[in-house]
Amino acid sequence: MAYNSIIVRVELNHSRIHFGDVAAAIGQAGGDITSIDVIRPGQDVSVRDITVHVTEDGEPKVVEALKLLEGLHLINVSDRTFLAHLGGKISVQPNLAIRNRDDLSRVYTPGVARVCTAIHEAPDKAYSLTIKRNTVAVVTDGTAVLGLGDIGPFAAAPVMEGKAMLFKQLAGVDAFPICLDTKDTEEIIRTIKTISPVFGGINLEDIASPRCFDIEKRLESELDIPVFHDDQHGTAIVVIAGILNALKVVGKRMDQVKVVVNGIGAAGVSICKMLLAAGVSKLVPVDRDGAIVRGGRYPQHAMWQWLSEQPQVGAEAGVLKDVIRGADVFIGVSRGNVLSAEDVETMAENRIVFAMANPNPEIDPAAAMPIVKVFATGRSDYPNQINNVLVFPGVFRGALDCRARRINEPMKLAAARAIASVVTENELNAHYIIPSIFNEQVVAKVRHAVVETAILTGVARRTPPDFR
Amino acid sequence: MAYNSIIVRVELNHSRIHFGDVAAAIGQAGGDITSIDVIRPGQDVSVRDITVHVTEDGEPKVVEALKLLEGLHLINVSDRTFLAHLGGKISVQPNLAIRNRDDLSRVYTPGVARVCTAIHEAPDKAYSLTIKRNTVAVVTDGTAVLGLGDIGPFAAAPVMEGKAMLFKQLAGVDAFPICLDTKDTEEIIRTIKTISPVFGGINLEDIASPRCFDIEKRLESELDIPVFHDDQHGTAIVVIAGILNALKVVGKRMDQVKVVVNGIGAAGVSICKMLLAAGVSKLVPVDRDGAIVRGGRYPQHAMWQWLSEQPQVGAEAGVLKDVIRGADVFIGVSRGNVLSAEDVETMAENRIVFAMANPNPEIDPAAAMPIVKVFATGRSDYPNQINNVLVFPGVFRGALDCRARRINEPMKLAAARAIASVVTENELNAHYIIPSIFNEQVVAKVRHAVVETAILTGVARRTPPDFR
Repeated sequence: MAYNSIIVRVELNHSRIHFGDVAAAIGQAGGDITSIDVIRPGQDVSVRDITVHVTEDGEPKVVEALKLLEGLHLINVSDRTFLAHLGGKISVQPNLAIRNRDDLSRVYTPGVARVCTAIHEAPDKAYSLTIKRNTVAVVTDGTAVLGLGDIGPFAAAPVMEGKAMLFKQLAGVDAFPICLDTKDTEEIIRTIKTISPVFGGINLEDIASPRCFDIEKRLESELDIPVFHDDQHGTAIVVIAGILNALKVVGKRMDQVKVVVNGIGAAGVSICKMLLAAGVSKLVPVDRDGAIVRGGRYPQHAMWQWLSEQPQVGAEAGVLKDVIRGADVFIGVSRGNVLSAEDVETMAENRIVFAMANPNPEIDPAAAMPIVKVFATGRSDYPNQINNVLVFPGVFRGALDCRARRINEPMKLAAARAIASVVTENELNAHYIIPSIFNEQVVAKVRHAVVETAILTGVARRTPPDFR
Repeated sequence: MAYNSIIVRVELNHSRIHFGDVAAAIGQAGGDITSIDVIRPGQDVSVRDITVHVTEDGEPKVVEALKLLEGLHLINVSDRTFLAHLGGKISVQPNLAIRNRDDLSRVYTPGVARVCTAIHEAPDKAYSLTIKRNTVAVVTDGTAVLGLGDIGPFAAAPVMEGKAMLFKQLAGVDAFPICLDTKDTEEIIRTIKTISPVFGGINLEDIASPRCFDIEKRLESELDIPVFHDDQHGTAIVVIAGILNALKVVGKRMDQVKVVVNGIGAAGVSICKMLLAAGVSKLVPVDRDGAIVRGGRYPQHAMWQWLSEQPQVGAEAGVLKDVIRGADVFIGVSRGNVLSAEDVETMAENRIVFAMANPNPEIDPAAAMPIVKVFATGRSDYPNQINNVLVFPGVFRGALDCRARRINEPMKLAAARAIASVVTENELNAHYIIPSIFNEQVVAKVRHAVVETAILTGVARRTPPDFR
C-alpha cells in the first residue's frame, strides 16, 4: 500500500464552521492530520494549510469529504511529490562571486576577451576554460517517457531535471535538460549537433525506438564527444551486471547458457549486443511476432537483421511460450504479464528471470519467486532492483574525466563488470545480486573501469591524474 | 596602466639554482612576488607556484627572464583571469538533496510520472513544475563576440558563462549558455525554437548584424516566450537611460534636441527606435556611407529603410563631420576615433557625447571631456560607464515574474526610465548620470517597471504577488 502526504489549503468561515468539524471529516475519510499552518489569520475568515497523511486511494476521499463541508472553501490540494517539483528541481549557480569591478573584469568584459581569444586559437582549451569538461546535455524529444509514451517535450522535463539532479549528486556531473520540440530524426540530429559546443557529452533519454538507433548512430559518427542513449545502454549495462552475478549464484557460465530476451526495442537490442560481447552461448531474441531467427529476413529493422546474422542466435522459430523451453535465463524488457508460471517451469533448472517491464513485470513476482532461483525486476519493492541509476553517473564521470571520444562496447561491458564487482563473494546470494543505488562504491568503480577501458581502446584524449 | 597577477609553476633543481636567484630574476624583470606555494617538495628537485604581480606588458619579460635561468624548468604560466575561468564559471545544482529512496521516488521514478502527466494534461503547468519559470537561454552563434568578431561558438562560451553568472548573482535568474555551431539564419531560428520548451526566455547575444534582426523578429513572432537581443536592446536601453539624465543635466528636453547616432548596426537601430519612442525632435542616423536620409532608398537594409520613412529623420545628406553640426547629442556605437575635437566643437552648446566604441571610443576622452557638458563611454576607467549589465538582469527578472509573452517597446522604455530614476535629483551631475552596476536598486526598479508595463500593455500572463 503506497502512502502519500497531501497539503490542503482551506479558507474557513468561522461563523459557519469550526476547525473541529474539519478535523473530524478528514479523520472519517481515512486521513491523518500531521500538521496545521495558519497562512492568513482572521477574525471572520482564515486560511490554513493542513498536511494529511493518506493512502494513495484515500486522497480523493479526503478531498470529497472537505468539499461537502459548509463554510469551507477548498483553495488548493498539493502533495509532497508535486511540492518537490515546484519551481523546478535544478538551478544554475556561479562558481565564484562577483564582488567588485576587479572580479567583474576577470569573468566578464574586458578580461574575458583574452580567454575567448585563447580558445579561438586552440579550441581544445574549451575543455579547460569552459564548462565543457564537466557538462552533459540530457536530451529528449519526449516520445517514450517512462511508461507514459509520447507526452511531449514540456511534460518530459521533470524526468530530465530529476536525471540532472542524480548526475550531480552521485557523480558531480553538471547536466542540463534539453527537451526538443520535434519528432523528426534529422531535425533532432541537427539540433543536437548545433548545440553541442558547450557540452562534453550527450545523454539521450526517452526517445522512441527505432528512431533512437539512427539518432545515436549518426551522432556518434558526427560528433567527437560521447553520445549515450541511456534507455538502451544504461539498462543493458545494469542488466548484464545483474546477469553476471546471477550466473555466479546458480553456478553457470555465460558460455554455457541459453538466454531469451523478450522485447527487442531500444533496451532489448543493446542487451542482446552486450550478451554477445560477454560471450553468451545461445541467444534467443523475441518480439511480438515471435523469435528472431538466424537466416531470417527483417528488412524493416536493421538491428533485428543484424541479430539474425549472429551465430549465437538460433534458427528455431516460435512464440515466447515455445522458445523459452529449456532456457537458463529470461530477460524481459517488454510488457506486463506475458509469462505464466507454467511457461517459466519449462525453463532449465536453476533458472534466472529478470522481469523488467514497468510498472507490471512480465510475470507476477508472487508467482515467479517460488519457482526461479534468481528473480529481479525494475521495481524497488522487491529484492534485486535493476535500475540504470547505477550506470549513467559513473559512465559519464569516467567518459568526461578521460575526455573519451565515445562510449564503446568494451567500456560498456567494463561498466557492467564494475557494477557486478561491488557485490563481494561473501555478500552475493539470490536476493542480493546488484548493489543499491545509494552504494557509494558504484560510481567510483564504474568510473575507473570506463576510464581504464577508454585508455586501452584508444578513445581517451586525456589521462586522469590517478591513471598516470 | 593595467596590472595583472600571474602564477608561474617552476621546477627547481637545487644543485644548480637557489630560490634567491629566481626571486632576483623576477624582480629585475619588473615583477613583484606576492606569494610562493610549494607544490611538490623534494631534496633534489622541488615544484613551486610563484604568484607575481606584473604590469600587462611586464608578463613576457618575467617569463623570458625565468626561461634564461639554468636549473629552472618553467612548467606553466597561468594568470588570475584564466584561473577564474578554469573548469568553467557556472554549475548545475540540485534544489534538494536525494537522501533516501523516498526522496528518489518523489523527484524521479516512479513519483515523477504523476508530475509529467499533470503537465501533459495542462502544458501551462510547466511554469510551476519545471525550471521554465526562472530559466533563460543565453544563445549565441559566436559571430560578433565583444570586439573580437566571428570567433565561433567554442570561443564565445566564456562570455555566455559570464553572463549566466551575472544573471544569477544580480537577479536570481537561472541562465544557461547555448553556443550554436551554425551561422545560418534559418538553422539558428529552427534550433532555438526546437530547444525552447525548458526555457522561460531567450537572451540572444553577440550575433552579427543584420542576421540578428531577422532572427529576433522571427523568434518573437513564432515563440510565446520573450526573446531579447541584448546587443541591440540592452545597449539601447542603458544609452537611453543615460541620455534621459544627461538631458536633465544640460536642461534640454527630448522633444527639443537633434541627436546624431553613428553606427546603425544592431545597437544603433535599437537606439534610434527608442529615441523615436521617447519623442526625440530630430534624429540623424549615420553609417559609413553617411547620413540615412528621409526619402532615401536602402533596399539592402530593411531597418535603414524603415528609419528613412520616419518624420523625425531629416533629409539633409552628408558624412558624420557635416551632419554633426548643430547637434545637441552625439551617440556613437561605431568604431574608435571617428570624431575630432573640431567636429565636436561644431555641435550646439551644452553638448552631450556618448562615445561607446570599445575599446577605443569614437573620440579620445581626453580631447572630448573639456569641450562637452556630459561625456560617457562604455569603459569603466572614465565617469558615466554605459554598461548593459544594468539592463538584462532586471528586464528578464520582470519578464519571467509576469510570464511576459514578449518584451515590447513600452517595456524597454520603462526599463530605461527606471535605470535613470535610480540617480536622484540631488545626486545627478555631469559626472554621475548613470548608476553603478553594483547599485542594488537597479534590478528591483527595472523589474518593477517591466512588470508594470507588461501588465498595462497586455503581454503579461501572470500578476506577481506584489502587483495584486
